[in-house]
Amino acid sequence: MTRITSVDVVDVRFPTSLTADGSDAMNKDGDYSAAYVVLHTDDPELRGHGFTFTIGRGNDLCVAAAEQRARPLVGRDVDELAADLGGVYRDLQSDSQLRWLGPDKGVVHLALAAVMNAAWDLAARRAGKPLWRFLSDLSPTELVDAADLRYLSDVLTRDEAIELLAARQEGRAERIAELEQSGYPCYTTSAGWLGYSDDKLRRLCEEAVAAGYRHVKLKVGADLADDIRRCGIAREVIGPEGHLMIDANQVWDVPEAIEWVGHLASFDPLWIEEPTSPDDVLGHAAIRKAVAPVGVASGEHGMNRVLFKQMFQAEALDYCQLDAARLGSVNEVLAVYLMAAKFGVPVCPHAGGVGLCELVQHLSVFDYVAVSASLDNRVTEYVDHLHEHFVDACVVRAGAYVLPTAPGYSAELRASSLAEFEFPGGRYWSGGQRAAVVA
Amino acid sequence: MTRITSVDVVDVRFPTSLTADGSDAMNKDGDYSAAYVVLHTDDPELRGHGFTFTIGRGNDLCVAAAEQRARPLVGRDVDELAADLGGVYRDLQSDSQLRWLGPDKGVVHLALAAVMNAAWDLAARRAGKPLWRFLSDLSPTELVDAADLRYLSDVLTRDEAIELLAARQEGRAERIAELEQSGYPCYTTSAGWLGYSDDKLRRLCEEAVAAGYRHVKLKVGADLADDIRRCGIAREVIGPEGHLMIDANQVWDVPEAIEWVGHLASFDPLWIEEPTSPDDVLGHAAIRKAVAPVGVASGEHGMNRVLFKQMFQAEALDYCQLDAARLGSVNEVLAVYLMAAKFGVPVCPHAGGVGLCELVQHLSVFDYVAVSASLDNRVTEYVDHLHEHFVDACVVRAGAYVLPTAPGYSAELRASSLAEFEFPGGRYWSGGQRAAVVA
Repeated sequence: MTRITSVDVVDVRFPTSLTADGSDAMNKDGDYSAAYVVLHTDDPELRGHGFTFTIGRGNDLCVAAAEQRARPLVGRDVDELAADLGGVYRDLQSDSQLRWLGPDKGVVHLALAAVMNAAWDLAARRAGKPLWRFLSDLSPTELVDAADLRYLSDVLTRDEAIELLAARQEGRAERIAELEQSGYPCYTTSAGWLGYSDDKLRRLCEEAVAAGYRHVKLKVGADLADDIRRCGIAREVIGPEGHLMIDANQVWDVPEAIEWVGHLASFDPLWIEEPTSPDDVLGHAAIRKAVAPVGVASGEHGMNRVLFKQMFQAEALDYCQLDAARLGSVNEVLAVYLMAAKFGVPVCPHAGGVGLCELVQHLSVFDYVAVSASLDNRVTEYVDHLHEHFVDACVVRAGAYVLPTAPGYSAELRASSLAEFEFPGGRYWSGGQRAAVVA
Repeated sequence: MTRITSVDVVDVRFPTSLTADGSDAMNKDGDYSAAYVVLHTDDPELRGHGFTFTIGRGNDLCVAAAEQRARPLVGRDVDELAADLGGVYRDLQSDSQLRWLGPDKGVVHLALAAVMNAAWDLAARRAGKPLWRFLSDLSPTELVDAADLRYLSDVLTRDEAIELLAARQEGRAERIAELEQSGYPCYTTSAGWLGYSDDKLRRLCEEAVAAGYRHVKLKVGADLADDIRRCGIAREVIGPEGHLMIDANQVWDVPEAIEWVGHLASFDPLWIEEPTSPDDVLGHAAIRKAVAPVGVASGEHGMNRVLFKQMFQAEALDYCQLDAARLGSVNEVLAVYLMAAKFGVPVCPHAGGVGLCELVQHLSVFDYVAVSASLDNRVTEYVDHLHEHFVDACVVRAGAYVLPTAPGYSAELRASSLAEFEFPGGRYWSGGQRAAVVA
């Protein structure tokens, strides 16, 4: 019998604010960070790794919350845990005192995501499979048992969910073979950070096209004249056939969003992303109606399944951008994928940050194999930074994620990276020259 | 010139789980707690006190977050702060790294509430006025400058808000005089906690009626047969003219809520409170349609103004139960009151917990004096526990809050209570006999 013997939660921060990587109209100076969870077992070869993603200050709050969330796992039998990840999730989630601080949102929910991501990594490693295959090999009933369907029965019952998955059983081997051949399509955000100069923007767009990307995303929303100029550059480089996406990172009120997007519509954007508060279901619905044929995309700050349920009910989204480290891990992600499939909304997961690309590649592949069985209008985000810190870093080739083969959820950070960027004790942060950044 | 010299944030927990005070279908064993903020100034007679309310574990997360939130206040001039509480709020709120952990929800938002509650207390004390009068003496423009209207302009513009307040200027002195005479009407939840026996329930309902209450609230949702029996007892005691409210504390999915409330409708409840997830705007709207004439009430877990905006847009609520320590202090509370007034929804604030009654009495009085100018369908919650820990405890007489007269927001905890219940170092918690509760 193998047991979980201890939990480490590490505060890891990368000084991305120094280069304006990740800069947008709302978030000008983030230091991309992770509250990183390691579940140790009495088998020295078997650990589980997971994290949630933050942009700096407050990462310590997620670390402290993850320590509290993970406490009930210590001493648990790994086989039992792997066989009932739905039960484990509900057990951790049901702590009513921590629930009060959400419920199902904010720091305590990010922490739940970190801990359960580690539990899923552990289970997939135990099975010797990459997470996408581990999930794809579960039966419809097993998947639905793992999914968090609470508060969703007005749009999706347990039986409907099982039927939906059962109907997609056929053709799975073919779909896996197809993705093993061609990868899962992705787009790049690396070109369009707001802090980049026009020259750098043009060069990065050109590089993206040369690397096989058909989609390019720009940050907008700080200054309209800048946005018009930058969209012009990008559209010129990618040509009329390329897809241009724009992302406002929540800076607008609803009327402002409609007006501003109107000024950029001539550049034919595929979608406007996060036009307003991520909580504003009815606002997104109003914007979507007003800016069509420009699509509306949102979800990286989508706090939980209840928000996504309403986004689908209100027909507020053309693209669902769930986040693998903000939703309550695979358990809640599954629920959102199931609802999206029922409502016919393509899921294009949010990625970037620290390690989100590593996670969402598994989710996208699983979606195609077992849930939506479609690639139409689907493209997963890719950002080309910080991958060097991961043991099983994702690989992108010709604008597509190469299917991961290593067991687990690709979430393990390198020991050398932890030694360098643990906050505040790692070599980088404890070095005198960086103390000023921390304040 | 008076400056803020330092900030203390204290973890205070009361062992309410021992007596089942506060027990309901979702929260069975809360230890009512506060992350308690004290802003010290270089005037030893002048401090600001504020808090957010939690039910135990995780209160430490709010303490740590409040320490981070409050940091920019140290060194600020108190007069400048008191003259621009909107600017102070926006300054603290705009920390983009902490914002990522919400935005405007969960632990970082609870912490913002605690800190800004202390800032408002400080400003009102500085002016020598109870908060309700401090607010009532501000001009419409000053109030709107303090309110957080971001993301709300599709339903309420700045100009509309100013007009709305200006239209209620007349008659303020009369309304104040009226409340000074009769108090602000309240109802009691003290009778109906789920953990109480039938005999205790009957006795407490009888005491409530004898004390002048016309409303009684029961917790429901754990067991239907129990609910039917308990509602029968309460209705029998309060008579057909009394108002019975029922509160499910989020335990149901939407279809289940509709069915369960149907079984209790014959007891003629005034409202069903928190029938489902507090995030489910469209769910509340569906329930409201289905259970009428039973009203729908929600808001104690209403995370922010954007949620309430949608609740109003979707006609999801008959009663808005905003929470003074979950919304971002008076700044965000103001926005919700303004929207409620525009949409004609009565605000009946959530109270109880630790010190929430002390806070919301000010808000209710202010609402009548300056915003809604109406008492129709309005009744503010009152729970009769933990008041002994407050220096300026609220006073209830004949079913109404007596208007507070002491300067400030009534949020100051007694030094003796802090010494006893600070966690984990206070006398109560560090005593050997209680160590087991903490785990």
